[in-house]
Order: sequence, then C-alpha cells, then structure tokens
Amino acid sequence: MSDRLGRQLAFLAEADRLKTVLRANTLADGSRRENSGEHSWHVALYALILADQAGPDVRIDRVLRMLLIHDLVEIDCGDTPIHGSHDAASVAAAESTAADRIFRLLPEDQAADFRALWDEFEANQSPDAVFAKSIDRVQPVMQNLQSGGGTWKEFAVTSEQLDTRVGAKIARGAPGLWAHVRALTRSYFDRAAG
Amino acid sequence: MSDRLGRQLAFLAEADRLKTVLRANTLADGSRRENSGEHSWHVALYALILADQAGPDVRIDRVLRMLLIHDLVEIDCGDTPIHGSHDAASVAAAESTAADRIFRLLPEDQAADFRALWDEFEANQSPDAVFAKSIDRVQPVMQNLQSGGGTWKEFAVTSEQLDTRVGAKIARGAPGLWAHVRALTRSYFDRAAG
Repeated sequence: MSDRLGRQLAFLAEADRLKTVLRANTLADGSRRENSGEHSWHVALYALILADQAGPDVRIDRVLRMLLIHDLVEIDCGDTPIHGSHDAASVAAAESTAADRIFRLLPEDQAADFRALWDEFEANQSPDAVFAKSIDRVQPVMQNLQSGGGTWKEFAVTSEQLDTRVGAKIARGAPGLWAHVRALTRSYFDRAAG
Repeated sequence: MSDRLGRQLAFLAEADRLKTVLRANTLADGSRRENSGEHSWHVALYALILADQAGPDVRIDRVLRMLLIHDLVEIDCGDTPIHGSHDAASVAAAESTAADRIFRLLPEDQAADFRALWDEFEANQSPDAVFAKSIDRVQPVMQNLQSGGGTWKEFAVTSEQLDTRVGAKIARGAPGLWAHVRALTRSYFDRAAG
C-alpha cells in the first residue's frame, strides 16, 4: 500500500467535513443554509462560466484550483459571515493554524503546493487571487437576491454598506460583473425600501 | 445590462438546485445523505489531489471542468444509484433531454462548449473522460468505507459485485488507485462477513 495514496485519501476524507460547515446565506430557494462544500462547488462553477469577466492575465485553471481549496480552513474555524462583527486579525490567525493542520495531511510536496496556493488566495494580490475573491464574493450576493434578501435582512445591511463591504471587492477583480450585479442589488434595495 | 451576463447568471442560479438532489451514499460521518452539489466539489478535489494517478495523456484541468458540470443533468433526473436497478437506455435518454434544457440556458457558444464537454464525459472514451469517471466512482467507495458500509449494506452488495460494477470502472482510468482501494474494500467485506 502506498503511503502517498494513504495520505492523499486521508486528506480527502478530512475534506468531507466541509460539507457540515454552514454559511450565513441560504440556497437560492431559501429552504436551508448553504454549506461550505457545496458553496465551493458553486463558486468554482461561477469562475468557469464567468471566465470572460476576468482580465487577460488571469489563468482560470489556477482560479478553479484556488476556489476548490479556499474554504477548507473552515473545517476548524467555521465560516465568518461578511456582514457579522469579527476581529479580522484573530480570524486570520486561526485560519492560518487550520491551514497548517489540514494541508499537512497531504504528502509533503502537495502540502507545500496547496498551502502556497491558499496563501496566495488569502493575500489577494495576484491577478488569479483577486479574480477568485471577486467570484467568492459575488455568489452570496446572487443567493441573497434569489432568496429575497437573505443575510441582508438578517444583518440589516443597506445598499451603501453592500457597495462598500462587498461591491468594492467584486469590482476589483471583475468590474463589469459588479456593474451588472449592482443594478440588480440597487433594484432590490429600492423595492425593499419602497 | 448585458444579455450574455444575464444568461450566465440564470444558468448559475439554476445550477444551485443541484444542492437539493440527494445521492444514495451519505457523508463520511454517516450523518445524512450527500447532495450532488457537494459531491461535485468533492470529486473535483479528488481529481486535483489524485492527479498523479492519471496517465500522461490526461489533462487534469479538463477533468476538473468535466467534474464540475458532470451531474447538472440530475437537476431534472435525480441521481441514479449505481447499485440500484435501472434501465440504462432510458436514464441516458432522460439525461440527454436534461442536458439540452440546462446547457441551453447559457450563451450559445458556452452552451455548445459545455454540452460537448458533458457528452465527452458521458461517452467515457477520451483519456480525460475515463479518468474523470474513475474519480467519480471512487469517491462513493471511500464514503461507504468511512461510514461503515453505507449503500453496500442498503443494497446488499458483495465484494465481487463491487469489483465488477465499480472497481473495473475505477481501474480503467486509475489502476493504481483501484489496487490501493480494493485492498481496503476487501478488508471491509472480510470484516463484515466475519
């Protein structure tokens, strides 16, 4: 039996736990909260379908890889709702500790490669990471629009707060996408206020 | 507003429904049945981590794309459990009709591209498709091992039936992987019988 395969399969078994981590937003039909495993699939599909929103220096295949692993740290830390209150530095420290534990389940070469890919995503500086973050931010906006407000109602979020907290991050990697989606969110908030 | 973006976002909203399609197998902890959205994430992660099990003519980035879209037809058709009884021809016809409807939500160029990718997966002939199918088959085997038997108990599956129905398909695209996993399944069935 191969120790390499054994470690890879142990990592994949541990990854299964991401399906039990619940996010703040619901499914589009509002029937239940979304888990971070199915969210990871959905954002990867978003990146694949919306690849033409990325700048020319973005490599979509690297973005897909980032998005497949980006939330694994939530197995230890849970999801941090963007509209909730939290201490960003302590969340980052806890997630770094989680990344240490989880990626080290892999064979050493893969542990280093995937930890570096996760660090790149978190640093949000490379074109691939900036686009991946934009996609990760836009999906819950669409879920909220489809479910009739979702976490915006729960956290009493205004249109202006959404622009600042979320829209600016989406626009950084995918400005055309945010221009389109912002028209939808403005329309939602106008209706909700009226 | 862009009609192209509108169609892409409509497709991604429809894709959300895959999170409500339940599969026969459970999560690794046995707590509930797995849905096809989180399964799609998990198999994509399997392909990424187990890429060194693929032959040299396999392009993992195409495999990831296939696995991200491979189950979308289940939005209309539901999951067909491998150990259940079903008419393969009628399942294939229904899934083809579903693929017509779902991929045509996309802009025409993407509808054609992703339909072709799904057809390639289903045909199970290209090296990429054969490896993707192997990965799609091995993940529920690992889920059953981890949950203590899962659908093997439910459908009274024997070790020999598993070899024929599943193992042969895994071995076709990833023989080293099946050799490793088969040792684990043999051990499980020996213990279950003892």
